[in-house]
Amino acid sequence: MNYLLIFHILGWVIQLEGIFFLPPAITGFLYGELNDAIVYLLLGLLCAAFGRLLRLRKNSNSTFYAKEGFVVVALSWIVISVIGALPFVLTKDIPHYPDALFEIISGFTTTGSSILTNVEALSHANLLWRSFSHWIGGMGVLVFILAILPMTGGSTMNLMKAESPGPSVGKLVPKMQQTAFLLYAIYLVMTVIEIILLLVGGMPLFDSLCHAFGTAGTGGFGIKNDSIAGYSLYLQNVITIFMFLFGVNFTFYYYILIRKVKDAFRMDEVRWYFLIYLGAVVLLTASLVKNGGGFGESLQTVAFQVSSIMTTTGFATTDFNLWPGFARALMVCLMFIGACAGSTGGGIKVSRIMIYLKQVKKELMQQIHPKRIRVLKMDGKALSHSVVHSCNTLLMTYIVIFIVSLLLLCPDGFDLTTNFTAVTATLNNIGPGLNLVGPTGNFSEFSTLSKFVLMFDMLAGRLEIIPMMVLFHPATWKK
Amino acid sequence: MNYLLIFHILGWVIQLEGIFFLPPAITGFLYGELNDAIVYLLLGLLCAAFGRLLRLRKNSNSTFYAKEGFVVVALSWIVISVIGALPFVLTKDIPHYPDALFEIISGFTTTGSSILTNVEALSHANLLWRSFSHWIGGMGVLVFILAILPMTGGSTMNLMKAESPGPSVGKLVPKMQQTAFLLYAIYLVMTVIEIILLLVGGMPLFDSLCHAFGTAGTGGFGIKNDSIAGYSLYLQNVITIFMFLFGVNFTFYYYILIRKVKDAFRMDEVRWYFLIYLGAVVLLTASLVKNGGGFGESLQTVAFQVSSIMTTTGFATTDFNLWPGFARALMVCLMFIGACAGSTGGGIKVSRIMIYLKQVKKELMQQIHPKRIRVLKMDGKALSHSVVHSCNTLLMTYIVIFIVSLLLLCPDGFDLTTNFTAVTATLNNIGPGLNLVGPTGNFSEFSTLSKFVLMFDMLAGRLEIIPMMVLFHPATWKK
Repeated sequence: MNYLLIFHILGWVIQLEGIFFLPPAITGFLYGELNDAIVYLLLGLLCAAFGRLLRLRKNSNSTFYAKEGFVVVALSWIVISVIGALPFVLTKDIPHYPDALFEIISGFTTTGSSILTNVEALSHANLLWRSFSHWIGGMGVLVFILAILPMTGGSTMNLMKAESPGPSVGKLVPKMQQTAFLLYAIYLVMTVIEIILLLVGGMPLFDSLCHAFGTAGTGGFGIKNDSIAGYSLYLQNVITIFMFLFGVNFTFYYYILIRKVKDAFRMDEVRWYFLIYLGAVVLLTASLVKNGGGFGESLQTVAFQVSSIMTTTGFATTDFNLWPGFARALMVCLMFIGACAGSTGGGIKVSRIMIYLKQVKKELMQQIHPKRIRVLKMDGKALSHSVVHSCNTLLMTYIVIFIVSLLLLCPDGFDLTTNFTAVTATLNNIGPGLNLVGPTGNFSEFSTLSKFVLMFDMLAGRLEIIPMMVLFHPATWKK
Repeated sequence: MNYLLIFHILGWVIQLEGIFFLPPAITGFLYGELNDAIVYLLLGLLCAAFGRLLRLRKNSNSTFYAKEGFVVVALSWIVISVIGALPFVLTKDIPHYPDALFEIISGFTTTGSSILTNVEALSHANLLWRSFSHWIGGMGVLVFILAILPMTGGSTMNLMKAESPGPSVGKLVPKMQQTAFLLYAIYLVMTVIEIILLLVGGMPLFDSLCHAFGTAGTGGFGIKNDSIAGYSLYLQNVITIFMFLFGVNFTFYYYILIRKVKDAFRMDEVRWYFLIYLGAVVLLTASLVKNGGGFGESLQTVAFQVSSIMTTTGFATTDFNLWPGFARALMVCLMFIGACAGSTGGGIKVSRIMIYLKQVKKELMQQIHPKRIRVLKMDGKALSHSVVHSCNTLLMTYIVIFIVSLLLLCPDGFDLTTNFTAVTATLNNIGPGLNLVGPTGNFSEFSTLSKFVLMFDMLAGRLEIIPMMVLFHPATWKK
C-alpha cells in the first residue's frame, strides 16, 4: 500500500473541501447569518491548512494500483463527510453529530434521505451547503481533482474507475484529465441552464441554486417541507425535464457536442432508459386515472415522480406513499433500476439491467438451440467477459449487503415495508422510501446503529460497493 | 420437436397417475367414503386407458434433445396437475376448478400453500391425495418413470436434468436408471422409517402417512387446521428431524450407503446447510428469548420452524407471523436460501448461495490482489464455467419472475408484505408467507388471475424456472 500517495490525495481532497465551504460562507454573510458564515469560513481555512500539512512530504513514487484506487476513493468520501458534517453541528442546526453525518453523507452520495423533521428551520448557509453537497457528489470529488490537477504518472484510470458509476468506464478522449474536465464542463453548463430556466419561471435565486444543485447531482434535498409541491407547474416541469436529463449517460452529451448525433441516439442504454421511463409513465398514469385521478394532472405528477425516482433524485410533488398498491410496487422497481451509467444518478443502472436481461435471454435461447453461438452485445459491440462477470458479482454483493442491512434495521421495530424501502432508498441513493420513510416522512426515528448501517449503504451505493468492501476487507491491509 | 416421443412420455405419466389414484381410492373405501372412492377409481381407470391411447403409435426415433427434455418435463407437470385437480372438484370438496388446480399444483410442487380455510372438512380420501401428491412431486414424476422403465436410447440425462433441483446433477452411478432407482429407494426407506417413528409416538396410521408424505416431499400440507401444533412434543421433534434430513443432498445418503462416510461429511453443501441451520436456530432462539420466551420452549419451536422453512416444507407449530421483526425478516431470508440441491426441498438451494458468495469473495480478492489466479471450488473440485454461468442466469431469471409476479398480484389490493411473501412462498415452494398468507392464513382471497400467477410460480420454482420458460417461449415452437 502506497500510504504516502494516499495521504497526498487525501490532502488535496481536504483542501478542496475548504474551497467548497466558501459558497455557504458567502451565503451566510449575504443573509446576515454571521455566526454560520464564520463557522464555514474558519472550517475552510482549517481544511486548507490541514490538507496542505498532509501533502508536506514529497511523494516520489506515484504508482497506483487498483487496490489503492479503491481505498483512496472510499477514504476520500468518508473524510469529506466526516468534515462536511461539522458545520451542521457547530451552527447547532443539527446538534447530534451522527445525525449531521447522516445528513451530509446523504448529501454527498446524492441520496437525499433526511433526518430533519423541519427543513425550513435551517439557516440559508446550511441549506445551501446541503444542496451544494449534492452537486459536489454528483460528478465525484476525485473526478474533480483529476479535472483540475495535472496528476503526473500513476494510473489515474483506477481512481476514475472506482468513483464513476457504471459497468465500464468509457474514456471520452484518450487523456483521463481531459475526460474528467469535459464531464465537469457539461455538468456545469447544464446546471447553469437549469438555474436560468428556474429564474425565468420566477423562482428566487437562492431556491434556484439549491434546486439546480439537487437536480444536477440527482440528490433530492429540498429546502421546503413540502419539497417541490409549492412551486408553479412550469417550475415543476423544468425540474422534471432536468432530472431526466441528468439521468442520461453523459457520453450521450459528449457525442452531441462533437456532432456525432447519430451515435448519440444509437446508444442502447439511453434508448432503454427512455423506453423504461415512458413505459413507467404510461402504466402509472393509467393506474392513477383508474383510481379516479384526472388525466392531465395525473400525467404531470407521474412524469415528475418517475423522473425523480428513476434518476434517484428524490424530489416530491406528491406523497406517492398514498398511491394504489400497483403504483407503489412499480415505484419500488424503478428505485432498483436507477438511471444510466455515466450519469449522476444511482441505482443498479440501466446498462446493468440490460446485461442481466440479455444474459437471461441468451441462456434461454441456448437451451432451446444449444448449437448456435451467441454473443452478448451492447451498442453493436460484444461485451467483454470481465464486464459481464463484474456486473454479475456486483448484483450478488448488492443482494448480500441489502439482506444484511435489512436484518440490522429490524431491531428498531418498524414494519417490513419501512425497513425494506429504507435500505432500497439509501443503497440506491434515492431518498424517500415508503411508509415511515415515505416522501412526507424522514429517517430521524431510526436508532443510531441503524443510521450508521444506512450511511454505509449510501456510500456503498454511490461508490458501487466494491471500494467500500475493499476498504473494510482485512486482506487489503495485510502485508 | 419430436412430438411422438413427447406423447409417448406423457402417456406413461398419465398411466402412472392412474396408479397413484389407487391409494386415495382404497382410503375412501376404508373410511366408508364410497362416493370419493369411486371417483378416484374411475379416474384411475380413465387415466390408464387414455395414457395407453397416447402411446399407441410406435415411436421409432427416441433421440432426445435438451429442448424436448424441458418441454416434456414442464408438460408432464402441467398434465398431472390438470388431471390431479379433478377429484377435488368431482367429490365437491373444492368445487371451484381453479382453486382445486391451485391446491394440487401446490401439492405436486411440494409447496403446501393452500386455498382451504378449513382443511378438516375434507374427506380422508382427498386428504390422503393431497399429502400423497407431495410425496410424488418431491422426488419427481419423471425420475420415477426413469427408475421403473427401461428407456432405451435417447439422452434421458436431459429429462433428469430438467426435473432435478440443483446447479449440477450428479449421477450417483454411471447408469441413469440405476441412479433414479437408488434415489427412490433411499426416499422410500426414509419415509417408512418416519412413519414407524410417528406410529411409535402414538400418531394414528392415517395421520402418520399424511405427515410422512408431507415431510418427505418437503411439502407441508397438514390435515389439521392448526397444522402440527396439536401433536405431542415427541411427534413434533420427529418431524423436525425428518424435515431437516429430507433437505439434505441425497448424494450424502448414497455415500453413507456405500460406506464412504468421510466423503459424505466432506460435502461442502451439507456442511453449509448444517451451519446455516445452526446459525438461524441460535439467532432466532436468542430473538425469542429476548422478547420474553422461555429458553427450552423457544429452542424447540425455533428448531421446528427453521427446519420447516429452510427445507421449504411449511408445517407450523406456531404462528411466526407474530414473532418480532428481526425474526420474521430472518425467516424470509431462510425462505430464499432453501435446502440442498439434490434434496426434495426448494428455494434457491444452499449450493447456489455458496456459488454466489464464492464469486463475491473471488471478485473482491481479485480487486485487492489482481495478479493472483483464483479458481472457484466446491468439494475440492473446480466449478465449471457453465455451472457458474447457469447459476448466475438462474438468479437473474428468478428475480425477473419474482418482480413480474409481484406486480401482477398488486391489483388485488393487499399489503406489500402479503404480496411479497406470497410470491416468496410459492416461487420457493414453501407454503406459508407473512400477514394474510401467514401460517394461520391462506391463499383463498386472491383473485383467480393472481392464483394462476402463483401456480406458474410454484411450477417454475419446482422445476427451477428454465423448463417453464422454455415451454412458453415462442422460439421453442418455431420451425
